[in-house]
Amino acid sequence: MISAPATVPPARRVLAAELPRRIGHQVTVQGWLHRRRTLKSVAFLILRDRSGLAQAVVTGPEAAAVAGGHPEETVLQITGTVTANPRAPGGAELTRPAVSALSGPAAPPPFDLYRPTVPATLPTVLDHAPVALRHPLLRAPHLVSAASVAGFRAALDGLGFTEIHTPKVVASATESGAGVFAIDWFGARAYLAQSPQFFKQTMVGVFERVYEVGPVFRAEPHDTARHLAQYTSLDAELGFVADHREVMAVLREVLAAMTAAVRDRAARACALLNAEVPDVPERIPEIHFTRALELLAARTGEDLRGEQDLAPAHERWLSRWALGEHGSEFLFVTGYPMAKRPFYTHPEPGRPRYSNSFDLLFRGLELVTGGQRLHRHEDYLTTLAARGEPPEPYAGYLDAFRHGMPPHGGFALGLERWTARLTGADNIRRATLFPRDLHRLTP
Amino acid sequence: MISAPATVPPARRVLAAELPRRIGHQVTVQGWLHRRRTLKSVAFLILRDRSGLAQAVVTGPEAAAVAGGHPEETVLQITGTVTANPRAPGGAELTRPAVSALSGPAAPPPFDLYRPTVPATLPTVLDHAPVALRHPLLRAPHLVSAASVAGFRAALDGLGFTEIHTPKVVASATESGAGVFAIDWFGARAYLAQSPQFFKQTMVGVFERVYEVGPVFRAEPHDTARHLAQYTSLDAELGFVADHREVMAVLREVLAAMTAAVRDRAARACALLNAEVPDVPERIPEIHFTRALELLAARTGEDLRGEQDLAPAHERWLSRWALGEHGSEFLFVTGYPMAKRPFYTHPEPGRPRYSNSFDLLFRGLELVTGGQRLHRHEDYLTTLAARGEPPEPYAGYLDAFRHGMPPHGGFALGLERWTARLTGADNIRRATLFPRDLHRLTP
Repeated sequence: MISAPATVPPARRVLAAELPRRIGHQVTVQGWLHRRRTLKSVAFLILRDRSGLAQAVVTGPEAAAVAGGHPEETVLQITGTVTANPRAPGGAELTRPAVSALSGPAAPPPFDLYRPTVPATLPTVLDHAPVALRHPLLRAPHLVSAASVAGFRAALDGLGFTEIHTPKVVASATESGAGVFAIDWFGARAYLAQSPQFFKQTMVGVFERVYEVGPVFRAEPHDTARHLAQYTSLDAELGFVADHREVMAVLREVLAAMTAAVRDRAARACALLNAEVPDVPERIPEIHFTRALELLAARTGEDLRGEQDLAPAHERWLSRWALGEHGSEFLFVTGYPMAKRPFYTHPEPGRPRYSNSFDLLFRGLELVTGGQRLHRHEDYLTTLAARGEPPEPYAGYLDAFRHGMPPHGGFALGLERWTARLTGADNIRRATLFPRDLHRLTP
Repeated sequence: MISAPATVPPARRVLAAELPRRIGHQVTVQGWLHRRRTLKSVAFLILRDRSGLAQAVVTGPEAAAVAGGHPEETVLQITGTVTANPRAPGGAELTRPAVSALSGPAAPPPFDLYRPTVPATLPTVLDHAPVALRHPLLRAPHLVSAASVAGFRAALDGLGFTEIHTPKVVASATESGAGVFAIDWFGARAYLAQSPQFFKQTMVGVFERVYEVGPVFRAEPHDTARHLAQYTSLDAELGFVADHREVMAVLREVLAAMTAAVRDRAARACALLNAEVPDVPERIPEIHFTRALELLAARTGEDLRGEQDLAPAHERWLSRWALGEHGSEFLFVTGYPMAKRPFYTHPEPGRPRYSNSFDLLFRGLELVTGGQRLHRHEDYLTTLAARGEPPEPYAGYLDAFRHGMPPHGGFALGLERWTARLTGADNIRRATLFPRDLHRLTP
């Protein structure tokens, strides 16, 4: 029934990137046939593995047959002698190769994976993600993403944070204005969690400093280049802060570690994408919301009195301003009006219309939201009452504050948004392996 | 509306564990009032922070008032002189302390958090998780869990794996026999993912070696001490393997790194729990399923001919056998009958009733399932046809195999199960911050 296993004997495998250090030796490489080219009596096979490309040269009468028998994307094992050739990838190639297939002959991919640019539209890429993502340009953002998360964790581990895993299914749909997805939970109604906000706050009472990397779900009915219905949220929360500034200081360390990890672990991917990794200044510039409005009004002539939020155009302008004025691709905007922040936001001492909260702008886009939270039980009750919300749906959450919670704050960073911005992607879906949105549930 | 911010001036905070190195200095500690004791004209305040406990001694006429004004769990800031005292936690205590509250007076917790054992039943603990988990004994398993995940990632990062994030919402409910949760997805029907299996396999085609740490969902209708409806799955998958043995070798490295990280990062938690971290042998012993049945039949007298799986009692017996015979708390059972394994399982060459799969038993319990997968498109079609399943629901997944996939395999390890087993928990819920099951959707 099942085909016999490959009769190819297992061989100690060498990665493509190692070939230049093996000149003169016989080695075995394994990977996907990225590209084949046949001249009169010579065939070039370019193999792709996770480290890069390796070229094998088949000469003599069998050249055409070897190349002809293996369509692109077939998985091959090639054993040959490593020979210097300045025109081959990495300056070395395999000569006198023995070629065998580890997979069946591959069907043609939806578009040529070997071309230097991607000859396909985004919908084609997404429809065929399992194969399309093999294209080095489409694969690269995900290496940047993986490196970024490693940096995020390394920074927080070093600062005494504990990693947590919280429920993605919750009993009430209360945390934010965004839509929620309903679930049938053993016959009861439940919802997909929109964020780990309540959990991470209460866990400050247990671990003081926590972080979580996990999926969050927003039933966003709009179909834009920057919204997903599932994305990966990098969340952190810490106790015993004086105010939101200490949260911003931790975020600065996190960003420095993320960019360092990208430089260190995803250098090839960045080079391929022409992605410039930003410098994180020792001190990220910050501007209060009220001052930002004044600045915008003065420079653009708009009447912005009474504005409660920044429009995307304002964020772009402020980002350019920070770059020009402070040489920084990052800008903290602090003190957003309470009216536009969630109920758990801590007000600004002495100016309670404003908040101890912040957004971090990166290259014109809001990347992180954070701030200090309320920590006294009575403040929660007062705030909910003022907003006309009953406390009952929040019972489990509010209970923690009855039992002693320290001043605390935190932030959330959208991984795909970060990766897209860093790699210059035109759509957040290019930073998501298998996007989920209004129209897309497969593959 | 909102109370004025604490008038306490911010102070450079020292952690409880640092006190012994600060004898003679004036320092400030911050944390929860773990326990207070008042004698005639002296009060002892034991403060708890993430590093441990710190004792402050208030003497004189105000002693009773200070202790009386701050119920247990109130968040305090205490500034005082560090003084050696062999009977205090860590051999040092704070004398002549200035005490101020960072929270309101705490309401009494559902049970005393300062007692050396937990004076509450599991349902009470779970109902009040945000507060109950502050008990050092209830908090400790989660520190072991966090350390374990760090070890998992460290091992795989070192072996060239790429971390991925895959959808938790899928269009068809097909992967396993276990129940699925249905979601209303913008009016369409969708399901919570039971595992990242299909995604991680196809991503071998892109990254060769991938791992994911994320939630999976099983609509398990049974209410046992070892089942959860959401748990954290540690998944890995790698390409270019000769067979399942290479997967087992990677898993061995992963377990070694996990136990090393637990020893390194969660030593205090393990000591508190009396948890013995297992040694991972250079070579974990393994036994073929058929041989395991023979052994079981011979030793227990049962007639096990034709058995397709191991009963829990068999797993416990085999674990004891491995410990006695090989001195190992881990045992690989390989070659499970194909009939009991999922359709993507690779059969055993020459003995197609059996499979290139394995379970890893740890202290009597199945902890990891893994194996080699099919990698040829035609093998998938043949297998599905033989099982009477149409290929259509698997279209996106199967497509990857048409385009060239290498021999590959992987494994999945349930984080909560690992932590529970390692810490000797009587119920997997003790290794889960906020369990979700048949009856529990809150807190």
